[in-house]
Amino acid sequence: MPSSTHISTVGEFGLVDRLREIIESPAADSAPSSDLLIGIGDDAALFRPRAGRGLLLTADAFVEGIHFDLAYTSFLHLGWKTIAANLSDIAAMGGEPGYAIVTLALPSKISVEMMEDLYRGARHACTDYGCRIVGGDTSASLGNMMISIAMTGDVEIGKELRRDAARPGELLCVSGTCGGAHAGLRILAREKRRFLESGARDGFQPNLEPYKEVIERHLVPRPRFDVARALVDVGVRAAIDVSDGVASDARRIAEASHVGLEVVGSSLPLLASTRAVAAKFAENPAEYALFGGEDYEILFAVADDGVYRLLERGIDITVIGRIVDAKNGLTFITTEGERVALPPRGWDHFMATGNAS
Amino acid sequence: MPSSTHISTVGEFGLVDRLREIIESPAADSAPSSDLLIGIGDDAALFRPRAGRGLLLTADAFVEGIHFDLAYTSFLHLGWKTIAANLSDIAAMGGEPGYAIVTLALPSKISVEMMEDLYRGARHACTDYGCRIVGGDTSASLGNMMISIAMTGDVEIGKELRRDAARPGELLCVSGTCGGAHAGLRILAREKRRFLESGARDGFQPNLEPYKEVIERHLVPRPRFDVARALVDVGVRAAIDVSDGVASDARRIAEASHVGLEVVGSSLPLLASTRAVAAKFAENPAEYALFGGEDYEILFAVADDGVYRLLERGIDITVIGRIVDAKNGLTFITTEGERVALPPRGWDHFMATGNAS
Repeated sequence: MPSSTHISTVGEFGLVDRLREIIESPAADSAPSSDLLIGIGDDAALFRPRAGRGLLLTADAFVEGIHFDLAYTSFLHLGWKTIAANLSDIAAMGGEPGYAIVTLALPSKISVEMMEDLYRGARHACTDYGCRIVGGDTSASLGNMMISIAMTGDVEIGKELRRDAARPGELLCVSGTCGGAHAGLRILAREKRRFLESGARDGFQPNLEPYKEVIERHLVPRPRFDVARALVDVGVRAAIDVSDGVASDARRIAEASHVGLEVVGSSLPLLASTRAVAAKFAENPAEYALFGGEDYEILFAVADDGVYRLLERGIDITVIGRIVDAKNGLTFITTEGERVALPPRGWDHFMATGNAS
Repeated sequence: MPSSTHISTVGEFGLVDRLREIIESPAADSAPSSDLLIGIGDDAALFRPRAGRGLLLTADAFVEGIHFDLAYTSFLHLGWKTIAANLSDIAAMGGEPGYAIVTLALPSKISVEMMEDLYRGARHACTDYGCRIVGGDTSASLGNMMISIAMTGDVEIGKELRRDAARPGELLCVSGTCGGAHAGLRILAREKRRFLESGARDGFQPNLEPYKEVIERHLVPRPRFDVARALVDVGVRAAIDVSDGVASDARRIAEASHVGLEVVGSSLPLLASTRAVAAKFAENPAEYALFGGEDYEILFAVADDGVYRLLERGIDITVIGRIVDAKNGLTFITTEGERVALPPRGWDHFMATGNAS
């Protein structure tokens, strides 16, 4: 049985000291530091920006019960994922990671050890991608747990990837595969339900092994800096990360760029295990890709010679549609070849119909 | 009766559009923008850092029921205060304001109009101090409301105000007055209790007029850029903003600087109205200053010639103690002249004994 220390026994200051030890341990050495002048422990962090580059700033909030369920998310995974989601925003701008600030609102059920695991997971992601946690703010919460992370990055001005730069005639592409994170979430939610319904809690054996790949897509997303760097190299200008599903995120590119676009359903890249999960639930796996979200792949527009140059470099991208004039609107071409309006759904936390699941 | 639009009727995207209109309205013009290349509406904001300056990054979380009570905090005030608290961190580093990112977790009771007021208050503070909101993330919440704001600023490297730069022999000073925010909170909490106990809700008249000054200290704190700029000018190196009370924040300077310090109780600068509130509750007003927090004044260490140079400029500072060797620890000198250990209390959200009230 792991030990469980109530945060009130060490206090906010004691907690911060313990978390600081994790962040500043030697294992975190690979993160950038030569430009960091003041880290954790002052009113603000202070760093020297790299000369001539533009500064990126982003933030994402993660709310218990909305973005994560502690019944099937370990704190190690949660720490990884919250950092990875912010890193994905930096990658989708064509940027390199900088510094992160973590704010936490913690209900009394959260122990010091849980927070240490959260920070270990966060540090792991930081170390893997070259980011550093330089501060934060920790508070109690009377309700659910919330994590908000703000992150900086930098990019060569003029080479940044933007939502508003797509042009008619370009192809619409996505990296990797889509819908996997949602397939993983479907399995985890089902196993939670089976667990709660089983009654015999001690004897319950979750059946997760066949779904390891998609569960990992949900719990341990990997920001695609490899893809983004190649996009910048070949001169791509318009990109977004797929955090809310291909439908929502393609719509964001279209609205920001004042263009229309077409998405070909049969071309959406899906893992075999994503198809298997959808089949099990008698659902359409294309909907996982369109509306599931949290894949953290990169959706972008590129002229056709750019597609070849990316494939030539071995970058795993798929053409899924094209950019058209704004007057043609947003079109989805179904597997049956029918042309329909691209559904406006996507992951919207406030809408009852916001999620395909 | 003001209109009340449920956020689900406009959705996350619709809400963001309405908030964006407030942020980008012409009235917000005075905020810096020439260096802002991408604002709200992309994966990250992009700006050009001012050449040769260090970048500051800070964040603060505000949790309903912990940091604010919607029973007596308007959304306009809440928006102001959340921005002001972050600005205060930038000021306390000797910096100039930059850009802010707002993340929100909103329970279903929060309407679109409430959020618009929150953003109007936030924009007001941004406009007054030269900051700009450049992005955010908005989510539903199943529990309480949470706001987390991250902010950048910049400072001349080598002139930043730090917690770790206090030296024995320097005087300990604070700007303005302390304990007023806590006095205001005491009154607001009392009026809420009276309201709930009155039963006759429609006929209830809160009695706030005599306490306007301290209530404003609680609801509309003003970051002390005026003081911080003067400190930088006269060569002060060690400072912190008073967010958790003089006792906690003086302790942070002592620990970071590896020094001891002495605080003279009778010298703590208090408003007459703060004394009046404490008298009403039969409490010690010095405790409001020591443990109340949220005054957002600046606590700093300075050589004695610096004190004169600051007074000469008309800066409202008070000498409240001095920095001593670490081996002498932290001492509080009571109004009766007794020397006691500086109490370790302060505003700690996780400790039952964390607040003097």
